[in-house]
Amino acid sequence: MEKITSKANNRIKAWAKLATKKGRETSGTYLLDGWHLVQEAINHNAKLRAIILTDEQLTEHEAALPAGVPVFVVPEDIAKHIGDTVNPQGIFAEVTLPSKTFSPSYVHEGAWLLLDKIQDPGNIGTMVRTADAAGFKGVVLGTGSADAFGPKVVRAMQGSQFHLELLQGDLVEWTKALQDNNLPVYGSQLNPEAKSYRTIDRVMDFGLIMGNEGQGMADELAAATTANLYIPIEGQAESLNVGVAAGILMFAIKLD
Amino acid sequence: MEKITSKANNRIKAWAKLATKKGRETSGTYLLDGWHLVQEAINHNAKLRAIILTDEQLTEHEAALPAGVPVFVVPEDIAKHIGDTVNPQGIFAEVTLPSKTFSPSYVHEGAWLLLDKIQDPGNIGTMVRTADAAGFKGVVLGTGSADAFGPKVVRAMQGSQFHLELLQGDLVEWTKALQDNNLPVYGSQLNPEAKSYRTIDRVMDFGLIMGNEGQGMADELAAATTANLYIPIEGQAESLNVGVAAGILMFAIKLD
Repeated sequence: MEKITSKANNRIKAWAKLATKKGRETSGTYLLDGWHLVQEAINHNAKLRAIILTDEQLTEHEAALPAGVPVFVVPEDIAKHIGDTVNPQGIFAEVTLPSKTFSPSYVHEGAWLLLDKIQDPGNIGTMVRTADAAGFKGVVLGTGSADAFGPKVVRAMQGSQFHLELLQGDLVEWTKALQDNNLPVYGSQLNPEAKSYRTIDRVMDFGLIMGNEGQGMADELAAATTANLYIPIEGQAESLNVGVAAGILMFAIKLD
Repeated sequence: MEKITSKANNRIKAWAKLATKKGRETSGTYLLDGWHLVQEAINHNAKLRAIILTDEQLTEHEAALPAGVPVFVVPEDIAKHIGDTVNPQGIFAEVTLPSKTFSPSYVHEGAWLLLDKIQDPGNIGTMVRTADAAGFKGVVLGTGSADAFGPKVVRAMQGSQFHLELLQGDLVEWTKALQDNNLPVYGSQLNPEAKSYRTIDRVMDFGLIMGNEGQGMADELAAATTANLYIPIEGQAESLNVGVAAGILMFAIKLD
């Protein structure tokens, strides 16, 4: 156990930089903020590189900390400096970024959520959490989506990254590979001329694509799907929040 | 048309204060930020007390501004001062707060969303927008919910407050009154011993209660419902975001 009291310390500087994509790429790690997430990481044997906490959090959780992981005790102002929220709980874990290469040609089953250029970190995190709740096998972030391990995404995922595959990939390639393996891939569109999601039989194994908040799915992707689905809007709202739309579609399409 | 160039101007001070509940109560108004919302207000004949905009926005939208509403032109730094986002578009409308008293005993039809102590403004706004999209008649905010006209709620509602009834009320009273008028009122719970929402027949006229993000529905309310519904969780997530859960339930229960 090591005490660090200065913001100028190199480790503190590196942890604070994990809020940026560049910082995460440099270190190959990201940060979990709060006991709930740290505990999820411990329970799922995530590769922990460090645990950082205040004296108060140490007293509370010392017995539950895993052996062999370096522990650093910091004062509250440094905890606030590292954390992304105004009042962090005061316990963090630095975790190795997943570096999995994963070819969709090996995917023969399960439900997969494909995210095409989703920009809002909260939307990405919420969709990963919902995919987990709906029993999806994985979430694939296409090129141009916001980074999956920024602080806002990690907060909104609530630990679901430990419960399913969270991958990056080319979504056209994924769409074709899933179809080659007999999984239908459904796109989603605001276009009322698309197929109502209510007309689709519930299935266990499929892909579902959610598109960019403003633009929707890329044309190339929309053209490659098995069918494009539409959620009928009854009122005067122009659209649904993409995270809400994803939840409606995931729970409506996936067979338990 | 009047030009205002000083932040010390009393009108500017009052508009900036509309970001707070106290400011809104003092003036009896709230603020719309951005042309999309201002346009929705104009199209739905909302009571506009003022339009505030930059020179650039004036050039772009002058022809579409309604007659008889005072227009104030401000420089960009004042637009930023009034707006809640980092880069506001530069066009605002000050709108009268709805002051409707509305007794649930007169409600004999339609779908109604009742929000019990929802805390996050983004969640409230998203649920109002989703209720609109699902064709709900109204949303009732129970005592202890965050205020419906704060800047974050207004942004997330995307104008849906002009498409349905947005009310405050006592939710136990609402629940009993709807039931007296033969509308079932469904609660929602994380408890797997509640009824799966998939076992419910789709209906046109009903109430649906969503509870606080952490605590769920109040016990008194849960005891007063027709039935309490549960969304089966297939994966390892502990729960769903309340806005996502509300979307799944609203679209699954409401008959078009």
